[in-house]
Amino acid sequence: MAVEISAGKLRNLACLADTNGRFKMLAVDQRGSLQRALARSLGKDPQAVAYEELAQTKATITRVLAPHASALLTDPIFGYPESVRDIPREVALLLAYEATGYDKAGLTGRERRTRLIDGWSVDKACRAGANAVKLLLFYHPDASDETRAYQQDLVRRVGEECVALDRPFLLELVTYPLAETGNDTPEFARHKPDLVQRSAAEFSKPEYQVDILKLEFPGDLKYTHEYCHKVFDDRERAPQYTLEQVAGYCQRLDEAAQLPWVLLSAGVGIREFLLQLELAAEAGASGFLCGRAIWQDAIRHYPDQAAMERFLAEEGAWNFLRCNAAAERALPWQLHKRFCGHANMALAGRSPLWYRDY
Amino acid sequence: MAVEISAGKLRNLACLADTNGRFKMLAVDQRGSLQRALARSLGKDPQAVAYEELAQTKATITRVLAPHASALLTDPIFGYPESVRDIPREVALLLAYEATGYDKAGLTGRERRTRLIDGWSVDKACRAGANAVKLLLFYHPDASDETRAYQQDLVRRVGEECVALDRPFLLELVTYPLAETGNDTPEFARHKPDLVQRSAAEFSKPEYQVDILKLEFPGDLKYTHEYCHKVFDDRERAPQYTLEQVAGYCQRLDEAAQLPWVLLSAGVGIREFLLQLELAAEAGASGFLCGRAIWQDAIRHYPDQAAMERFLAEEGAWNFLRCNAAAERALPWQLHKRFCGHANMALAGRSPLWYRDY
Repeated sequence: MAVEISAGKLRNLACLADTNGRFKMLAVDQRGSLQRALARSLGKDPQAVAYEELAQTKATITRVLAPHASALLTDPIFGYPESVRDIPREVALLLAYEATGYDKAGLTGRERRTRLIDGWSVDKACRAGANAVKLLLFYHPDASDETRAYQQDLVRRVGEECVALDRPFLLELVTYPLAETGNDTPEFARHKPDLVQRSAAEFSKPEYQVDILKLEFPGDLKYTHEYCHKVFDDRERAPQYTLEQVAGYCQRLDEAAQLPWVLLSAGVGIREFLLQLELAAEAGASGFLCGRAIWQDAIRHYPDQAAMERFLAEEGAWNFLRCNAAAERALPWQLHKRFCGHANMALAGRSPLWYRDY
Repeated sequence: MAVEISAGKLRNLACLADTNGRFKMLAVDQRGSLQRALARSLGKDPQAVAYEELAQTKATITRVLAPHASALLTDPIFGYPESVRDIPREVALLLAYEATGYDKAGLTGRERRTRLIDGWSVDKACRAGANAVKLLLFYHPDASDETRAYQQDLVRRVGEECVALDRPFLLELVTYPLAETGNDTPEFARHKPDLVQRSAAEFSKPEYQVDILKLEFPGDLKYTHEYCHKVFDDRERAPQYTLEQVAGYCQRLDEAAQLPWVLLSAGVGIREFLLQLELAAEAGASGFLCGRAIWQDAIRHYPDQAAMERFLAEEGAWNFLRCNAAAERALPWQLHKRFCGHANMALAGRSPLWYRDY
């Protein structure tokens, strides 16, 4: 039976992926985290980092690395205005919709609510040439009813905006510790597979009208038996599971996600990300949307522009090529169970009167 | 001094051209002329050619030839619904806005008025993923005031729609005989340079908000001293000018056009089109938007699908590659006098508040 897909979603999903349907996407939409990284390199307070410094850094990363991407994600504040001319014609464009950071909520103040960029919209993103819209949503399936409802309503609203403009909606889900004492704890590492799976299952529901999920790796490789002994950083950790178990979490995540999904890097190092990506692709992910794992080490050279560019052109490009190679094992989005192949997909409303009824 | 250009126009103009800014675009938006050609191959009346026959022929041409194009122009009735899945991700998309043919007008009934496709709009084109909108306008600078005003109003209206959606507007101007007894006459050949120039000058005015002009060759090579002796077809003609004079008409057209312009093929044969393209590029054209000169001979094989595909893959692709080679001498659009180079172009409203004010 044919699966129907609307014109704008079909055409733009094709643009976001490579020719074979695998997403090899670069994220340069970081704001708060990039500002902090620039501040560290400058020995300044993050607030003292100027607009131009963020904007020019994003433009540099875009100019050097975007040619390796099937699509580029940037933000409309610091990214787009200074970078648009450096996005190659054949690299598709995603624009972010959420404001950086989050609002604290709930009784404990540890719940997180997302805000949209004030004065921005899906309509503006489309006019500016975006092939898709991205929303980062902090989500915890055990947060209060109020916070969950708030976050769910926001996703529904953006989903409707995207349907009205017929553009793909990419939803990024990021979990966070509620009861745990931090991100890098044995407790959070143990809970993570479940948190990521349940979040993906929630936003796979058709009512949200999401097209692609951007997901965290469902576990923490630094807490596996195999990699807990200072493999990815200088810290020794107590193992919580085996690599084989983590591969199983990836499989279960793929079952929970009813939509094509891509892996995010969340600032882990490149070696850890490459291993995550292999496991995710093996389980059925359709590629990646990765930023810092590819380019974060370049920021250490800031404000030495030449050194930063050299690093990006050498290490950064090499990182990207390795990600692209790992993603060659990813599942083309048209082959995802939602679509069951190119031959099985039909343009919604296809008829001699499509142009009138669309 | 910086020339300002809006976000959506800038990004999408870049997508329409190749990496260096040269337009190498394929037209498959023919309706009436393609229907007549299919009817000839079938020995049928044009009215007896079915929707599916037109739609499938367009899909075949698109599948085989679009990979050679920087952008593909199709129509939303017969073209888009059956072809959208065959447009490669890196090939940009133009959609036609005018209904096929024209309405007869004026005292003599020889004037031509353009109608838009009923139920179609720039908004729908953008939602469906179009990078630009194309309008074919029949225009004669000596038509009655009423007909000229009608045609000019239509262009203004489409220009405004494109500005509202921030998409490039490509205007195709086609002149026609008013007093002359046909297209292929010494009189029309003599008048043509002037008709094409004056039409281009008119619609270069900022009030129409056109971004790219798609223009006829400003003369008829079959009426030159050099090529009038059965070079391009079997007919002997009386020469009206020399090749050098025609090269001068191209220069004057380039002076009259205040916008980047591309050459259309109007169904001339490939050898004639290649020569036209060389002369146009030499004069300052930014490429071509060509259909029939590349693929028309394939239609002779209809309904033999295999023979048609073989012809397209061999002769059609060769024709396209020769056009692309000729267009390598074209002027990148950013270097057109309107923009004066990439470095000189600035995003309109560029500021830290661009996202809010856009």
